[in-house]
Amino acid sequence: MDIATIIGVFCGFTCIIAAIVGGGCAAMFIHIPSILVVVGGMLSATLIHFSLGQVLKIIPVVKKTLFCKLPTQPQLVQDMVNYSAVSRRDGALALEQNIADIDDPFLLKAMRMVVDGQEEEAIETALDAEIRYLQERHQNGKKILEFMGAAAPAFGMIGTLIGLVTMLQNLSDPSGIGQGMAVALITTFYGAFLANLVFIPLAGKLGIRSKQETLTREMVVQGAIGIAKGEGPTVVRERLQAFISAKNREDFKPSMGGQQSQAA
Amino acid sequence: MDIATIIGVFCGFTCIIAAIVGGGCAAMFIHIPSILVVVGGMLSATLIHFSLGQVLKIIPVVKKTLFCKLPTQPQLVQDMVNYSAVSRRDGALALEQNIADIDDPFLLKAMRMVVDGQEEEAIETALDAEIRYLQERHQNGKKILEFMGAAAPAFGMIGTLIGLVTMLQNLSDPSGIGQGMAVALITTFYGAFLANLVFIPLAGKLGIRSKQETLTREMVVQGAIGIAKGEGPTVVRERLQAFISAKNREDFKPSMGGQQSQAA
Amino acid sequence: MDIATIIGVFCGFTCIIAAIVGGGCAAMFIHIPSILVVVGGMLSATLIHFSLGQVLKIIPVVKKTLFCKLPTQPQLVQDMVNYSAVSRRDGALALEQNIADIDDPFLLKAMRMVVDGQEEEAIETALDAEIRYLQERHQNGKKILEFMGAAAPAFGMIGTLIGLVTMLQNLSDPSGIGQGMAVALITTFYGAFLANLVFIPLAGKLGIRSKQETLTREMVVQGAIGIAKGEGPTVVRERLQAFISAKNREDFKPSMGGQQSQAA
Amino acid sequence: MDIATIIGVFCGFTCIIAAIVGGGCAAMFIHIPSILVVVGGMLSATLIHFSLGQVLKIIPVVKKTLFCKLPTQPQLVQDMVNYSAVSRRDGALALEQNIADIDDPFLLKAMRMVVDGQEEEAIETALDAEIRYLQERHQNGKKILEFMGAAAPAFGMIGTLIGLVTMLQNLSDPSGIGQGMAVALITTFYGAFLANLVFIPLAGKLGIRSKQETLTREMVVQGAIGIAKGEGPTVVRERLQAFISAKNREDFKPSMGGQQSQAA
Amino acid sequence: MDIATIIGVFCGFTCIIAAIVGGGCAAMFIHIPSILVVVGGMLSATLIHFSLGQVLKIIPVVKKTLFCKLPTQPQLVQDMVNYSAVSRRDGALALEQNIADIDDPFLLKAMRMVVDGQEEEAIETALDAEIRYLQERHQNGKKILEFMGAAAPAFGMIGTLIGLVTMLQNLSDPSGIGQGMAVALITTFYGAFLANLVFIPLAGKLGIRSKQETLTREMVVQGAIGIAKGEGPTVVRERLQAFISAKNREDFKPSMGGQQSQAA
Repeated sequence: MDIATIIGVFCGFTCIIAAIVGGGCAAMFIHIPSILVVVGGMLSATLIHFSLGQVLKIIPVVKKTLFCKLPTQPQLVQDMVNYSAVSRRDGALALEQNIADIDDPFLLKAMRMVVDGQEEEAIETALDAEIRYLQERHQNGKKILEFMGAAAPAFGMIGTLIGLVTMLQNLSDPSGIGQGMAVALITTFYGAFLANLVFIPLAGKLGIRSKQETLTREMVVQGAIGIAKGEGPTVVRERLQAFISAKNREDFKPSMGGQQSQAA
Repeated sequence: MDIATIIGVFCGFTCIIAAIVGGGCAAMFIHIPSILVVVGGMLSATLIHFSLGQVLKIIPVVKKTLFCKLPTQPQLVQDMVNYSAVSRRDGALALEQNIADIDDPFLLKAMRMVVDGQEEEAIETALDAEIRYLQERHQNGKKILEFMGAAAPAFGMIGTLIGLVTMLQNLSDPSGIGQGMAVALITTFYGAFLANLVFIPLAGKLGIRSKQETLTREMVVQGAIGIAKGEGPTVVRERLQAFISAKNREDFKPSMGGQQSQAA
Repeated sequence: MDIATIIGVFCGFTCIIAAIVGGGCAAMFIHIPSILVVVGGMLSATLIHFSLGQVLKIIPVVKKTLFCKLPTQPQLVQDMVNYSAVSRRDGALALEQNIADIDDPFLLKAMRMVVDGQEEEAIETALDAEIRYLQERHQNGKKILEFMGAAAPAFGMIGTLIGLVTMLQNLSDPSGIGQGMAVALITTFYGAFLANLVFIPLAGKLGIRSKQETLTREMVVQGAIGIAKGEGPTVVRERLQAFISAKNREDFKPSMGGQQSQAA
Repeated sequence: MDIATIIGVFCGFTCIIAAIVGGGCAAMFIHIPSILVVVGGMLSATLIHFSLGQVLKIIPVVKKTLFCKLPTQPQLVQDMVNYSAVSRRDGALALEQNIADIDDPFLLKAMRMVVDGQEEEAIETALDAEIRYLQERHQNGKKILEFMGAAAPAFGMIGTLIGLVTMLQNLSDPSGIGQGMAVALITTFYGAFLANLVFIPLAGKLGIRSKQETLTREMVVQGAIGIAKGEGPTVVRERLQAFISAKNREDFKPSMGGQQSQAA
Repeated sequence: MDIATIIGVFCGFTCIIAAIVGGGCAAMFIHIPSILVVVGGMLSATLIHFSLGQVLKIIPVVKKTLFCKLPTQPQLVQDMVNYSAVSRRDGALALEQNIADIDDPFLLKAMRMVVDGQEEEAIETALDAEIRYLQERHQNGKKILEFMGAAAPAFGMIGTLIGLVTMLQNLSDPSGIGQGMAVALITTFYGAFLANLVFIPLAGKLGIRSKQETLTREMVVQGAIGIAKGEGPTVVRERLQAFISAKNREDFKPSMGGQQSQAA
């Protein structure tokens, strides 16, 4: 799981819960009917807006975004360089046993195509289509999360309006006014909380992860093409390092000089 | 009818109605003058904004979006492949009896043009114009629904202001204050409800349906062109499968391997 | 006058007035100082924002948008076809008496250029410049109306703030509180009413009318060019029908089949 | 000074002041600490956002926008035509005494370059760079004014929050509540007033003036190039009239027919 | 440190603090739990939205933006001209001792490449990559600050909702109502303050600084290329002055005439 997300979720919930508990009425903040109005309304609007297929795909997309580890870029470069060395020395078929330990399904598929002796163009076409499809799923997930981030406060407001109208009917009992307004405001709180600590940031993370994953996938494609063409390890390394930004390159090639990192 | 829309509308209304009934004053929430202000004001603004023709077309467009079933893509591919086989074997005229059972009017029109022996270019020109016109109608419907989604809360606020000013005139009777404010807030509730559970999600669904329908229509066009050109079933299948995304392709061609579906 | 606008304005005002009268304090809602703040402030901001020339031109532009009747497209096609037949048979000069009854000044100008025997390129250049200038005026009017639609609620809020501050000074007289707040809220009501029922929808209508008028004008240009070139009625009809969308074409050429209208 | 701006500022201030005075507590509305929070906060945010150079340049830019008179376009055409006639007849040097009375510094510079016998390309390069730089300053000024228009209401709200928190501390003295809330709301009033009657409309005017000034400057450039090339008055007039829109052209060439002005 | 930022921060804080102290309850405005909710919530949302690497990089980027002095453009032109003169006269190696006093790491790197005798293309490629990477970091920092500027008021509202709900539970003790609402509003104040005086203006400054720094860096690149090519001081000066806008050029070349500065 992405470390920043873990820290963010943990700290965010801690801050909000501490503020609630510090106020002394924590029990008040768990109000099932209010949760139903906000979450139910939001999900309903999402289902009306999108198709069922799109909405159901959002869960695996978010889960993979948060929990799947991408191979780090330097590691990936090293792996591809190793594969190219093996392939150069012993032929593509010799990669068979190397790819046995690959976890990442995309990398596995790419290397299998190399081992199967497919042509570069076939590899590029097949993998590029997969990348485009991946981006589409991410884009789709981002749009749904952003819609949820807009719908949650709206249904929070709808819930508060229902609560206020109900409360205003019963003004004859003054002791109930405070209680009624408190309950009415809870839905607005839920809506603001869900939107600002869950949906909007998650949509952002999905966008950032999509860029990273696309980059990593494109490195795999370039590496696989290089190996399929029979390029040597040096050429493959050069091919892949064009993808890595100056700063990261330095991180694992410290020989290139240090003044670069000071120019911010 | 689109299954997600059914679920969404049902759940959304259930959540909101449950919250209202749970508050104990459900009767209060049906207030005819308030409905008139919000719905009447919104429709009036829509009529001033758009032309009468555009506004009247919105109802069939939305109805078709929700209730017309599109042929599923794999089914469509299969149908076109069958037609091309028949046409290859027995000539285009032999399709006459096949197209008798076609429900979809667009597919019917396309196949009739093929049976009539029209040239590929004529078929493409005529059907592309139809697709462009279809998109224009969808685009138009989406804009109107989005305008309604913005106008509904605005007229909700206008209604609430009228209610508040009226109520503030009669402060001498304190027992009426709560009642007056409750009535005033009802219009804001109507506006928020209509916008967030009806117009905004419907506009979104129309956009998504428009993309799907355009894609399906383009597959029909490509298929019809292929059959008119006298292409065999295999070529037609290839032509059409370029339109179907990787994931869906797998769903009905499970032989292509499973690792693809894991790369999210 | 555009029929949708008439219905919209009539219904909108009826709904709002009914809601006000139903509340029982209709007199309250006509408050001259509040009208002055909202309308005066909005007009002042508009004058500071735009130049005097632009603001003064908005009235004729809106008036023409609402009250000038455009020739309907089928009628226009028929007229141009007739003119081309006359011109083909008796020469361009014979059109002199036909154009005597033309109401539309743009069509009149175009036909006069044809009668005067001007060349196609001169006709196209002169009329295209006129169309561009027409679009610019519409664009300009739309921008001003949209600015007014944003300024009206802002000055409504300013008026409410003035009213609230004034009212809060005199809290010692409790009977005046309700009255004071009611007066304060009136400006917000005016601002919301003007923006949502007048300026924003009018700006939209202007945009839609601009598209329609541009299309009609372009049909006139194409027709005039055709006649000036000496094209026959059939060619001119074809030239112009390319501008009319599939649906409309059907409406006056019902022989083309009915399945088209079902494909929504 | 632009006449619309004078009218707008005068009417706007009159409306607001009349509303304030009509309420009977005008003195209340001048509250120095509130002015400091809103204006000071807004200026501080502007200084943090932009560089000092950019912020200081805003005053001369706005002053020139409001007070510098541009030569009217027909006048400019006439002047350039006269200069070209003189230059044609007596040589460029003869323009020396004509340009003595030129007020507009840009026109003066352009004509000096002509008198100095510089080549057309040098004139075009130098003056185009000046125009680009002028647009950049206008663009810059517009952005700052728009930022101020967004910052003023924000600091109005911050001031109101400070006032409310302070007031809520002293609820024990009920007579101070109204006074406290009134003071708190004053900053929101200042923010809304400054944004909607000053900054947002001024930013708009700057944009419109920028377009006009660019057009006028480009006419000067074209005129100067024409004169430097030795073109006769007729050619220069034609060159410049291409810049003037159809309507304006009519205004001083009424011979071209009147039906144009009716086609709105 | 950028002088405008110093003035802005100083004045902004002074205005706000003066307003708070003037209200007489300054102690109230420092409320640790409220600070925790707003700042903690905002940082958590930022961590969920962006990756850890991006968020950590924001601090050095902002620090450099505010505190690193860029060489002024005229100074930079002069330096590059001097280096080119030395290089012309004594060869590139003679620059070795000149570059010893260079503070700016980017300029230092560029001149070292020149001294090392690298080719122009290699210099351009390496430095352009560095500039692109610099822009990416700035862009990234700007996005994070803008997100923080949107998240701070949102968490301010969440804190206020928590405070209100808590306060409304305890309406039985009327003396606590004012205190409770005051505490509840503090978080909204923090959010508005942080967004409008810190994050939004800082994001703007970062954008403006990014443009300036990119321009300065590009001047260094052009200068280094010129020196590497062996161009003389005059050519190098011309190369670099193309980057400096008309107004600035005048500031240190007053001989070019004064009327330019009046044409605003």
